[in-house]
Amino acid sequence: MCHRFETLGAWAFLRYPAPMNDDSTTPAPLGWRYAGVRSGIRTAGRDTALLVSDRACTAAARVTTNLAKAPCVYRAKAATPGEGLRAVVVVSGCANALAGPAGKAADDALAASVGASLGVDAASVLTATTGVVGVPLAVSKVQAGLPLAASALTGDPEAAAGAILTTDTRPKSAAATVEVDGVPARLHVMGKGAGMIHPNMATMLAFVTTDLALTPAAADQILGPAVSRSFNRISVDGDTSCNDMVMLLANGASGAPLLDAGDRRLSAVEDALTGLLVDIAKKIAADGEGANHLVAVTVTGAATEAEAHAAARGVARSNLVKAAVFGADPNWGRIAVSAGQYLAELGSDAHPDRWRITICGVPVFAHGAPVPFAAPAVSEALKAPEVAIAIDLGDGDAEATAWGCDLSYDYVRINAEYHT
Amino acid sequence: MCHRFETLGAWAFLRYPAPMNDDSTTPAPLGWRYAGVRSGIRTAGRDTALLVSDRACTAAARVTTNLAKAPCVYRAKAATPGEGLRAVVVVSGCANALAGPAGKAADDALAASVGASLGVDAASVLTATTGVVGVPLAVSKVQAGLPLAASALTGDPEAAAGAILTTDTRPKSAAATVEVDGVPARLHVMGKGAGMIHPNMATMLAFVTTDLALTPAAADQILGPAVSRSFNRISVDGDTSCNDMVMLLANGASGAPLLDAGDRRLSAVEDALTGLLVDIAKKIAADGEGANHLVAVTVTGAATEAEAHAAARGVARSNLVKAAVFGADPNWGRIAVSAGQYLAELGSDAHPDRWRITICGVPVFAHGAPVPFAAPAVSEALKAPEVAIAIDLGDGDAEATAWGCDLSYDYVRINAEYHT
Repeated sequence: MCHRFETLGAWAFLRYPAPMNDDSTTPAPLGWRYAGVRSGIRTAGRDTALLVSDRACTAAARVTTNLAKAPCVYRAKAATPGEGLRAVVVVSGCANALAGPAGKAADDALAASVGASLGVDAASVLTATTGVVGVPLAVSKVQAGLPLAASALTGDPEAAAGAILTTDTRPKSAAATVEVDGVPARLHVMGKGAGMIHPNMATMLAFVTTDLALTPAAADQILGPAVSRSFNRISVDGDTSCNDMVMLLANGASGAPLLDAGDRRLSAVEDALTGLLVDIAKKIAADGEGANHLVAVTVTGAATEAEAHAAARGVARSNLVKAAVFGADPNWGRIAVSAGQYLAELGSDAHPDRWRITICGVPVFAHGAPVPFAAPAVSEALKAPEVAIAIDLGDGDAEATAWGCDLSYDYVRINAEYHT
Repeated sequence: MCHRFETLGAWAFLRYPAPMNDDSTTPAPLGWRYAGVRSGIRTAGRDTALLVSDRACTAAARVTTNLAKAPCVYRAKAATPGEGLRAVVVVSGCANALAGPAGKAADDALAASVGASLGVDAASVLTATTGVVGVPLAVSKVQAGLPLAASALTGDPEAAAGAILTTDTRPKSAAATVEVDGVPARLHVMGKGAGMIHPNMATMLAFVTTDLALTPAAADQILGPAVSRSFNRISVDGDTSCNDMVMLLANGASGAPLLDAGDRRLSAVEDALTGLLVDIAKKIAADGEGANHLVAVTVTGAATEAEAHAAARGVARSNLVKAAVFGADPNWGRIAVSAGQYLAELGSDAHPDRWRITICGVPVFAHGAPVPFAAPAVSEALKAPEVAIAIDLGDGDAEATAWGCDLSYDYVRINAEYHT
């Protein structure tokens, strides 16, 4: 996946904030209930999640830029930024994308059924689907499980976080608290990513529920930059999905003051949100298909943040760099050449004669020429679960970090062999 | 490799011409001599090629757009379009790129030595290097072999075509004849591609020698569009090299009339040249690292050629599509979604509701919905050496074909395991 969401905001700051509170010790947002049950869409396991607010909430979303958009993506686009929302239903195992009118009808039926089972208007229900492309959702299976799902709703998001997964190897959630004028509020995010679903592509989904009080415009204002600095900076295989979606839903149950767009108190909220999304983004990259390593590529000294972003993400995306990491090969040439490729696409004036490159902290290239280094030691360092690649372009003060993973035999196996 | 050359011309026509004359039966260009010898740069085999004209010739070139350019690339940029050229030396096994001042000095010494051994001015010698990045060329090894190379020059390009290879599994050449006002002239092209050189990336090189008489401007005029429709439409792994280069050298030995830019007789020459370069491009894609299949992606019905090109090349580049071909998986969802991703980047108004997709000639998707098809039969068809994917966007008359290959375990092995 190479996530590209619409309406990317400017990057107000560079480094993601300090790690957030541990998910297990941070209370879930007030006024939210969650459930994760099995409807039989996937061949095994929980596949249907409900996220339900006890009152109307506001919502913002960022969705895939892909021209091929699933019906759930169009629903989210139409409803956000907006208010009066009550629930999100997430079904894993079927993307319900490129499935023609039957897919659209299934998505409508899904929203209507969830609304009916919760006693809320269908228009207040958002949907998200992920999995097989080209097959309409077997909505009757989900409908049959809705009574159980509704009865299973609790304040604990854990079951829902598990039910949105496809071939992810582990759930991905994060939580934080923020204060607005001394009133504490809670944010929780659950995400899924880099699993490949038979027979089609992974979808990146993330749902932020919070008891903050945000106008739709405020939610939209902070979601854009947070997504730009997190999900838009990860890459597993360079392919975007037709269902990628990130939602922020705020119900105000904390009693914190309502924040509108432009309110300076939003800055702290945006920082907390960004930290959470970066946390989930890194977890998605680290759990990429066949991945053994999280690769963090940091570009500093760029003339612009756009150049830093392009170079960092380009290196994180390069098959050659990814294969080198898989092989524990301190192959700085591939790093430099990949940066040069993506910077060139931007018309950059950057030049390798000003670049410095480090791998796992060890200088390997400086000012147009190789720097002698102990290759066996760097190769050993590349076997760590997290690997750092850094490039200083020597041009300015802008910087960006992107995250990716290695390219392994398992990636090819997962994506080629389901048929055999 | 995802080749991007500078100064791409408009695409004057869509389909590449009919297959060219068989290389083995087409006479080599007059006034050209070739040699391929071993200097000891590669661990084994011939690694040094000379292409020598018995008279001054004109030259045009297209070089990598990567910001990281090897010294030989800067030499070619400075000398072309131009005239008074006599020879090209190609060394495989060392890219002589990102090697600092020592690399620049080695490239200068290489040109000077070749000039001295041939009795021509150093400024009339072009250079091309491919292989390891970050190591200066051991030019003394090449210098030691130059007397042998000079004495080995013959009218047969075969040895030279073999000496420019790196980990390509087979030589790649093509030849054709054209007539200008009834006077026959000959074109020959030798290329190399998709081999990965320890420890760095493949370079795509191609050298067209001809006995046509072309002004530098004429050579430049026809080379741009021919490269756009050939090498700029192949992808092995999405990574551009710091050494990619295509040269066209014309010595006029055929006695054909001199053609200047804008001459309408250039049209036939451009067609022949394009056919040759497409032939080499397809051979490079088919011989990609670890490749088992040549994948031809044809996009028709596009609003613009830029959209057709972007969609075709995007699909050919997609890791997910490539892995599906490796797995003989008729996974049309990945094709549609990949097209949607790259068209979106262009701001296209294309919409899946108007698309039709075929795999190996079998309709699998039409107008926003799946078309039932016999998956086992299509899967079987995908096991052929050449695989055809076609997308009609239903928007206009523009079209383009791009070529790629499958993504196999061997790709990962070749690019990850040299260290182990």
